[in-house]
Parts: sequence; C-alpha cells; structure tokens
Amino acid sequence: MTDQGALLRTFLDGRWAWVRDEVRETLRDPLFAPVYDISIDDHRARVLEQARRIATTRGPRLMFGKDVGGEQEPGAGITAFETQALGDLSLLVKSGVQWGLFGGAIQHLGTAEHHQRYLPDVMSLDLLGCFAMTETGHGSDVQSLRTTATYDATTQELVVHTPDDDARKDYIGNAARDGQMAVVFAQLRTNGASHGVHAILVPIRDADGRPCPGVSIEDCGPKAGLNGVDNGRLAFNHVRVPRTALLDRYGSVAEDGTYTSPIENESRRFFTMLGTLVQGRISVSGAAVSASKVALTIAIKHALARRQFKAPGRDDEVIILDFLQHQRRLLPALATTYALHFAQEELIAQAHEVFGGDSESSEDDELDRRKLETLAAGIKATTTWHATHTIQTCREACGGAGYLSVNRLPQLKADTDVFTTFEGDNTILLQLVAKTLLTRYQADFGDLDALGTVRFVADQVMETVIERTAARNIVQRLLDAVPGRDEDTDLRDRGYQLSLFEWRERHVLDGLARRLRKGITEGGDAFAVFNAAQDHVLTAARAHVDRLVLEAFVAAIDRCDDPDLAALLDLVCDLHVLSHLERDRAWFLEHSRMTPARAKAVTATVNALCGELRPHAELLVDAFGIPDVVLAAPIAFSSASVQAQSLK
Amino acid sequence: MTDQGALLRTFLDGRWAWVRDEVRETLRDPLFAPVYDISIDDHRARVLEQARRIATTRGPRLMFGKDVGGEQEPGAGITAFETQALGDLSLLVKSGVQWGLFGGAIQHLGTAEHHQRYLPDVMSLDLLGCFAMTETGHGSDVQSLRTTATYDATTQELVVHTPDDDARKDYIGNAARDGQMAVVFAQLRTNGASHGVHAILVPIRDADGRPCPGVSIEDCGPKAGLNGVDNGRLAFNHVRVPRTALLDRYGSVAEDGTYTSPIENESRRFFTMLGTLVQGRISVSGAAVSASKVALTIAIKHALARRQFKAPGRDDEVIILDFLQHQRRLLPALATTYALHFAQEELIAQAHEVFGGDSESSEDDELDRRKLETLAAGIKATTTWHATHTIQTCREACGGAGYLSVNRLPQLKADTDVFTTFEGDNTILLQLVAKTLLTRYQADFGDLDALGTVRFVADQVMETVIERTAARNIVQRLLDAVPGRDEDTDLRDRGYQLSLFEWRERHVLDGLARRLRKGITEGGDAFAVFNAAQDHVLTAARAHVDRLVLEAFVAAIDRCDDPDLAALLDLVCDLHVLSHLERDRAWFLEHSRMTPARAKAVTATVNALCGELRPHAELLVDAFGIPDVVLAAPIAFSSASVQAQSLK
Repeated sequence: MTDQGALLRTFLDGRWAWVRDEVRETLRDPLFAPVYDISIDDHRARVLEQARRIATTRGPRLMFGKDVGGEQEPGAGITAFETQALGDLSLLVKSGVQWGLFGGAIQHLGTAEHHQRYLPDVMSLDLLGCFAMTETGHGSDVQSLRTTATYDATTQELVVHTPDDDARKDYIGNAARDGQMAVVFAQLRTNGASHGVHAILVPIRDADGRPCPGVSIEDCGPKAGLNGVDNGRLAFNHVRVPRTALLDRYGSVAEDGTYTSPIENESRRFFTMLGTLVQGRISVSGAAVSASKVALTIAIKHALARRQFKAPGRDDEVIILDFLQHQRRLLPALATTYALHFAQEELIAQAHEVFGGDSESSEDDELDRRKLETLAAGIKATTTWHATHTIQTCREACGGAGYLSVNRLPQLKADTDVFTTFEGDNTILLQLVAKTLLTRYQADFGDLDALGTVRFVADQVMETVIERTAARNIVQRLLDAVPGRDEDTDLRDRGYQLSLFEWRERHVLDGLARRLRKGITEGGDAFAVFNAAQDHVLTAARAHVDRLVLEAFVAAIDRCDDPDLAALLDLVCDLHVLSHLERDRAWFLEHSRMTPARAKAVTATVNALCGELRPHAELLVDAFGIPDVVLAAPIAFSSASVQAQSLK
Repeated sequence: MTDQGALLRTFLDGRWAWVRDEVRETLRDPLFAPVYDISIDDHRARVLEQARRIATTRGPRLMFGKDVGGEQEPGAGITAFETQALGDLSLLVKSGVQWGLFGGAIQHLGTAEHHQRYLPDVMSLDLLGCFAMTETGHGSDVQSLRTTATYDATTQELVVHTPDDDARKDYIGNAARDGQMAVVFAQLRTNGASHGVHAILVPIRDADGRPCPGVSIEDCGPKAGLNGVDNGRLAFNHVRVPRTALLDRYGSVAEDGTYTSPIENESRRFFTMLGTLVQGRISVSGAAVSASKVALTIAIKHALARRQFKAPGRDDEVIILDFLQHQRRLLPALATTYALHFAQEELIAQAHEVFGGDSESSEDDELDRRKLETLAAGIKATTTWHATHTIQTCREACGGAGYLSVNRLPQLKADTDVFTTFEGDNTILLQLVAKTLLTRYQADFGDLDALGTVRFVADQVMETVIERTAARNIVQRLLDAVPGRDEDTDLRDRGYQLSLFEWRERHVLDGLARRLRKGITEGGDAFAVFNAAQDHVLTAARAHVDRLVLEAFVAAIDRCDDPDLAALLDLVCDLHVLSHLERDRAWFLEHSRMTPARAKAVTATVNALCGELRPHAELLVDAFGIPDVVLAAPIAFSSASVQAQSLK
C-alpha cells in the first residue's frame, strides 16, 4: 500500500483502530473464510465453531461491565462487530443475537443478580441464548405482542404462554438448533392487572438439547441468506419460570404480586426498555457499511482488471472502469460509503457516551438516549438501503462472474437483504425519526400519539434534535462563508452544499408540520391525516439523515491534518454530495432552490468528479483494509486471465 | 374470480391465450412446484426431469419449422416460454438454452440438412445441447471472441481450438452435466484468411456422458440462483469436426476451403447472424415480466391479509395495504408490470411476424429485423431491471416472511438477478438502442462505428425507427386532442402524457446528436466523445423505450371493448405514467416542460391514484392467472394466522 493509502486506512480506522486490527487478525484464519455450497446443517455447525473462536477474543467482552469480567468499552465492541462483518455474515448475525441482543437484554433490562449469574456464561458462550421478541403476527408493532407472562403468587412463578399461532415468537435466531435460554418479551400480568411488555428469561432446551417441557420449537427452514443462523419459532404452553426470571430493571414483581416500576407510564416504560437495545440497530448499520465496502472492493478491483471493446484507433481494449457509465455506477456508491462510514463512526461515538464508556450516568439521560435512538434509526435505514442498492449494482457491474458464488457477491446480496427489515423495518424507522423531529412542533398539534402508526411517546420537547454535534463549529464556519447568491457559488463549495441540505430539512419539516396541523385543525381523522402525508413524513426523515451524514463527513475532513489526504476526501465528499443532489434535484427545482441550468450543471459535475476520482479508486478501496481471506472473490485479485485460472 | 377478473384475465392472455392455458395446466402438476433447500445435484436432476416432461408438450415444437415436425408458430412459442416462467426459473433457463439458443442457432444459422438431422432430436430432448458463445474474457464484445475454427482441407475438417483460458467458453448452460453437443462460436479461418465469428456444431460428450477427446469441461459451481442449470466452462484442444458441422446459412466452406457468404461485409454478416438469435432476448424479457407478476401477487396478497398498528379510535389493526407508503411501494410497480405486459405482447407479435408465423419472407427484411432487435434490446433492459427492482421491493414489503425460502421471493430474486446481464448486458443493450436511433442523424457525423464501444453496423438510415406500430392511429388522435397549454391540461390526459414522452425522446436525441457532432467536428477522439456522453446516450435509449411502452399500453386500452375494463386499465395506465413522471420529473423541470407547481401535482396525483387503485389490487393480480402450485408461497394464500399454520 502506498503511503497515502496507509494514511487513509489509519484515518478510517479511527478511534478504535486497535480493535479493527485485532478482528482483522482473527479473520485471517481460514476458519473464517466465507463459504457457499454447504448444507444448512454444516453451515450452522461451522458458524457455531466460529462463534466459539470469537468467544476467546476480546470482542464480546468489550460490551459488558467490568463487574462481570467485561471491559465496558461499547464503542470498541460495536467497532469490533462491524469489522467482523467483513467476513461471513451468518457468523455476524449469530454473534449479534448472542452478545448483542440476548446478552444486551440481560445487561440493560436485568439487574445485578442477573448480570452475575448469566453474563459470564453469555460472554464465554457457555450459555447460548435467543432474543424472543418478534411474533408471527407482530413485528413492527412490538408493543402489541400477545405472548403473556402471568404471575402466580401461590407458587411465585411467572407463567409464560402463547395464546395462538399468531403469538408464536418467529424468526428467532439461535432458536432452531443451539439456544438454551430465551429472553421472552411478553405482556406481564400480576394480580389481574396488565403492565405491558416485559422481558423474562425462559429456558428453552435442557442439558441434552431437547426442548424444555411446554416449549415447542420449530425450524424456520431455509432463508434467502444467513443460512448459518438457526432461526426458529418458539411457542410456550403455560411454561413456569421463577419470579426472579423477570428482567426487572424497569419493572419488578414482589412476592405477593405487587408490581412496581421506576417509570409510571406504561408506554414510556416500554419505549425506555426498547431504547436500551439500540445497540443492535447500530451494529446492523455498521455491518451494512462493511458489506458495502466488501462489494465495492470486489467490483472496483474487477473493473480495473477487466477490459472489453477496443476503441477505434487504440491498441488495447478499454479498462471497464474507464467507461463513464461504469464509473457512474460504482464511484458515487463508493463516495457515499465513505460518507456513511463517518456517520457510523459518529453514531458509535455517541453510543459509547450513552452506554458508559467513561461513566454510567448518561444512559439515564433520556434526552441523550432519545437523540441516539433517532440517529440510530435514521442511519440504520440509510446504510442498509445503501448496502442493498450498492451490492446489487456491484453484482451487475461484474456480469456473469458476479453471479458465481465463488465471487462472494451472491452471498453478500442474500445475507444483507434482510438488514432493511430486521432490527426495525426501515420505513418504520424513518417514521420514528420524523416523529421525533416533529416534537418541536408539538405545541401546534398536541399529542403526537394521536397521529398513530408508530406509538412513540413524545413527552419532551426536543428543540435540540436538529442541533449539530461533532461538526458544529466547522459547519457554521462554512455556512457563514457562502457568498450571497446560489448561482454565483461553486457547486463544490462545501458551505453551499451544507446550506442546501439544511434548508431542505427545515423546509420539508415546516411544511409537514403545517400540513398535519391543518389536517387536524380541520377535524380530520388523525390516522387519515398522518397516512395521507406518509410520503412527506419519509422525505422529512431522509432530509434530516442526509444532513447529519454530510455533517459527519465534513467533521471528518476537518479533523484530517494531512492536506493531501484531506484534499482527496474533499473530492470524495463532493462526489457524495453532487450525486446525491443529482438524484434529488427534482425537489430543489420544485422548491425553486435550483435553476434548471444549475440542475444540469450538477449532472455535468458528477461526470467530472467521476473522472477525477477514477485514478484514486483502487487506493480508496484498499484503505478499507479487508483481509484477503474474507475478500475471497477470485475476481478481486487479478486480471481477467488470472482470475479465470484461479476459478479452476 | 369475479366477472371483471375473468374478463381481464382473458384480455391479458391475448392472442395466444390457448398456449398460456396449456402451460398453466402443465405447471399444475406437482412436478413443477418450485423447490428450495435441495442440493445442486438433485436440483439439476429434477430440472432435467421437468424438461423431459415439457418435451412431451407442444411448447418446444411451436418454435420450429413444419418441415421438421414443428408448428412454426413462434409467437405462441415465446408466449409458452414466458408462461412457463411463472414456475421454477431454472427449468425456464434450461429450456431456453435447449430449445431457444441451441435449437434456435441450428434453425437460424444452419441449413436444411442440419435441420433434418438435428432438430427432431432437439425438440424431443434426445439431443441435449449448449450455446457456447460467451468466453471468460469476452462477454459483451462477442465479435472479439478468440476461440478459433481452422479449416484443414486435407481432411476436410474444422479444427476447433481454445488458445488460452481467457478464450474458454464460460457460464455455458447445459455444459456441466447434460450437454451432448455445443454450438460453438469461433473465428473461422480457411486458407489462411479469417472470416469472423461463425457457429459450429461440436460434440462435447460421448454416449457414456464422458467428455469427448480434446474437450475439457468444468463446472461453474454454485451461483446466486438458477442452480438447477448446469453451467460450465468448455475448452477445446484442437478438436476436429467435419466440414459440414459448420452452420452455414450465412457463410460456407467448400471442400477446397473456399469461403463464400451471401453477406460480403464481415461485420454486417456477424450482426445478421447475431440478429437471428433475438428470440432469446425476447424470451428473457417475457420471463422477467412473469417473475414480476409472481412477486407482486405474493406481496399484494400478503399486504391484504396482514394487519399491523391499531389506528387511534379504531378497533381493528390497519391492513398494511391501506398505508399510503405500502401502496406507493407496490401499486406503481404493479401498474408498470401491466405496461410491460402489453409492451412484451407487442414485441412477441413483431417477432412472430419476422420469424415467419405466416410466411418466411419477412425474416429477410433487414429493416424489420433491425427494428425488432432494437425493440427487443430496449424492452429486455427495461423489463429485467423492473423485475430486479420489483422483486426486491416485494421482498422488503413482506418483511421477515419475505426472507423465508418457503415464500418464494428469495428464489425469485436470486434466479432473476442475472437477467439484467445475460442475453446482453442491459447497459450495452441500451447503447445499442441509442445507436440505432442515431442512425437518423448519420449524415451529420459519418460512420457510427467510429464512436466505438458497440460495434454496430449502421449502414441504413432508419428514419422509421421512431415510427409507431400498433398504436399509430389512436396515439395521433390523442395527441391531436391535447389542449394548447400544458398547465391547463389534466395530468391524466393521455394525449398530454403521450406528448410529454414523445417530446422528451426527440429532445434528448436531438441534443445527443448535436453533442456528438460537435465533439467530432472539433476533432475530439471518437471514443472520448462518445464516452463523455454515455449517460446522455442511455437517457436517450430509455426515453425511446418509455414512449414505446406507453404506446403499447395505449393501444391495448384502445382495443379493449369492455368499457368498465377499459376504465380500470386507464387507471392503471395513469399510475404507470404518473409514477414514471414523478421519478423523472427533474428532467422535465430542467427542460422547462414542467413548472414546479405541476411537478408537485404529479406527486399528489400518484398518491391519489394509489388510493383509487387500492380496491382493485387483488383483482389486478388475480388476473395474471398464476396456478397455485407455482405461486406456492403460503403468505400468498391466507390471513396472517392461517399463514403461520401453513408454515408448519
């Protein structure tokens, strides 16, 4: 790697570079080579073996508290997780279920006794667990789950029950083969009263691996991808567990059945509990960025080696990355991957603050948590759709070779496909972002809950959600430096770009608030009013996320102290912004913030930027630092003829 | 099915309804149920068994001449093929290789003796064959293939040879397991002179299934999808075949090695040969439409059964197709699927004319053939990208259930993915469309070949390419009826919509021609000039295809004589057009053909149309007439709870 390449890689690796290198080293073992053409049983066995190896590394311990032998370094933990996503994504999801969701629920929803009793075995993989939240009939609307946990004071037990097939826990990772215990989310009932959804630890398999009495386990069977993960369906027939199985940080049941909680409002309690689990969403987001990096590395290496069509008057056939259209397919996706890398980095840093890198305190700051949840929801929706789109483009850009499993793109596509719908369906997540933004306008139209579809408790006016974080100062400086008239300003002027993104966000949001208020004021049915504006709602959320992503990129360039590197990143950022503006230019034209001539200039600038970045394409993907053993695809390593040989 | 449903289905089934019903009846046998979680070996064996069953039906015979026992009804043959695409797509591709490509090459490139000797066995599947065109190093640029066929006059044999690994025949269907013979495309050399690419019949396996002497066969191994097709790599080490193995309709070799051809120009000869194989492209296009229909049927049925989120003040949870965003995801895709159905129908009708439904004559009309090729290229690129996008959307719209193989969407996605790049990479195909359109401007900048990248012989000025076919009269009538000013015209006015599409096509094409002429006049390097305008080239092609698709829809509505049905189709057409205009409104804004207010009205109209079509959604998918056995997905059949039970 060139000097600049090494510098860029170090810069990308960032604050937790050491953990990225540790995970890369782990992944270099052939045990972690991606596989295909392997039976589901063999794949599951292999993934469990890989997970046992991961359990011997520091990765899983980073997430947990020092009192149970962890390192309490959640930022490093999530970074380790997203680096692991360069390899087989079945392992990643299995790891995420075990340490992120199952272990995370015990850590965040349980209390000291649960921590001491279970977390050491969770970390070491001596206790394999499931996160049993989603039901067949309820996925996005988890507050309406129908599994029940009824307290029986006579035996001091909770009775966990599945009333019908719709209430079965579905798509549950670790359930079909390996899980010994599940965190089951159920409607808690004590002394005849209901207290909403709570989490309860329920053993599901005995020491011999047989389902526990009253527990039915089904295998979800083959999936589009992630077939190394044993997803299953769980049903409970009046299964009794001790009272202490309730993870009782946010709600506990006394021996006589008296229910107490530090949070009185049931809905708010539920969303507080849910909020502690935001790390799963952040981790999936990071995995989506990593998968995009792998796909782009393969497609760009191939595009640099492959030649096709002899241009008139030239001797050699043309390198396919020299075709403008091939550049337009791959380079803007690469630029946006850089943008999302920096946004994800900032998201992790915020999670690290909230979840107690340095102290426990901020986890209890509801405002910080809400901000983190909103950011995570928005970034996760953006990174996972980006991954789906990018990997598809890379597959097509590699033609027939991209369709062969040996070249990794098929599994990358299939494995990441579900990222857009699990850990929160992206459409639902964007609505959550929009609703949070709308709390600023709450005084105008009262309780947002009345707007339906996402039951989000907006009981605190969040003037500050739109506030800038890392980039505050530099963004303001750049904004202040923009000349007066748009048409006089260079399209590549960063302040101008920022002003466009910021203006759009405010304009869309103001318009949305006005529209909703008008609908409600005129006596419209709340659901109908909100539903009729759903496309507007999603546009508002996207505009918000787009601005945050751009500001994260700007902050990253600002902290880069190597001028050549900063100049290169500036170019990447320009392509990210301009290709984004090209895609969304209709909005700016409609709102008279761009003239037709200006909009056409955006397209011309994208073309020019593609040409300018073309010589740096290889360096930009090499800097991702993907170990050869997981990059794996023969087409990523050599010229066409050598590729062909290596396929033998 | 309701009366209107039955009427719509009959209308969609169209001219060759009888063959659609025959194929549906065939597919109802459990032998044709889609499979998953099956080993590659078992899948290949199953697909061969299915193909043998298909060989006993009329389908394969429809494509071939009466002199060899066929029915010479190519329109019906392609219709049969696209109906078969409602089932397992591995079978479809295997059938396509055998009867479309292998059999089609013998039929169109061979002469009477080849027909008599081979086609009966091709139809009956007693002779399984490969179409060995693509090489590892050359896919899109087939004119530069490097396999050689050198005539040895001393033995009157052709010596077929693979000079290096780059020249191996790659991704060849039927090669890895079943093929006994291959049509090999190779550079023909006789008496020291080269004559360009020709097709030669080469046995590749002996009666015991072993590779013939000098033939190496490799298995391409697992692919993203279509794993029931045995794709392989073929290499030839000086393999000798008799002189008569040359498919010699367009070029023959006398005993002494003298080469003669009815087409003198080598490049033109090559593209004439290639042009006869256009049916493969038309068939893939039809398959893409069929796969889109299956995915939409599954996703819409699911969206009508699934409920989520209770709206404030309502008792039931909301049916998810009642959410505006869910409508926006599925209903425009459904509307465009209707549009593409009618465009495909017209494409088949034209192919039927050219390939001798009623007479042989028109196949030799170069202009008709060129028009067919151009249309096929454009429609294929459009339908296959539409399928990729639509199936992805449907998968996401079904959430976790959509990720389970049992619900068919995973295989539909994986199987159709390669449609965008095989039978002509879509980007290359659109360039071909644009170049054909540019021949009208040829006088302005001379030989188009000089523009490189697609070696397309444009030796005939084709003023008529843009000419309307089926829709000519009705389109003109609608255009004439448009009021003067855009802003006064209803967005749903069909004539107005047509005028927008037509205006864009002419404007983009005129601009492109000016730009290329200017670049060349100013002494620019031909490749550089063309490459710098590549995005413009693709826009021109898309604008052309979009207009043709819309005109096909208009023609279909015009021939519908049931007023209620025509009104429903009008609504579907409106949503197709308006959602298309919404997506592309930036272009119309940039070119001042739409005001900002008008552009915003487009979005509002799309929302309104979604609501208007929502009550007809089920009828619109039922009319596709997909047999239950191939629809297969449990989520397509029942409400959520019943779905869950049926997953057991």
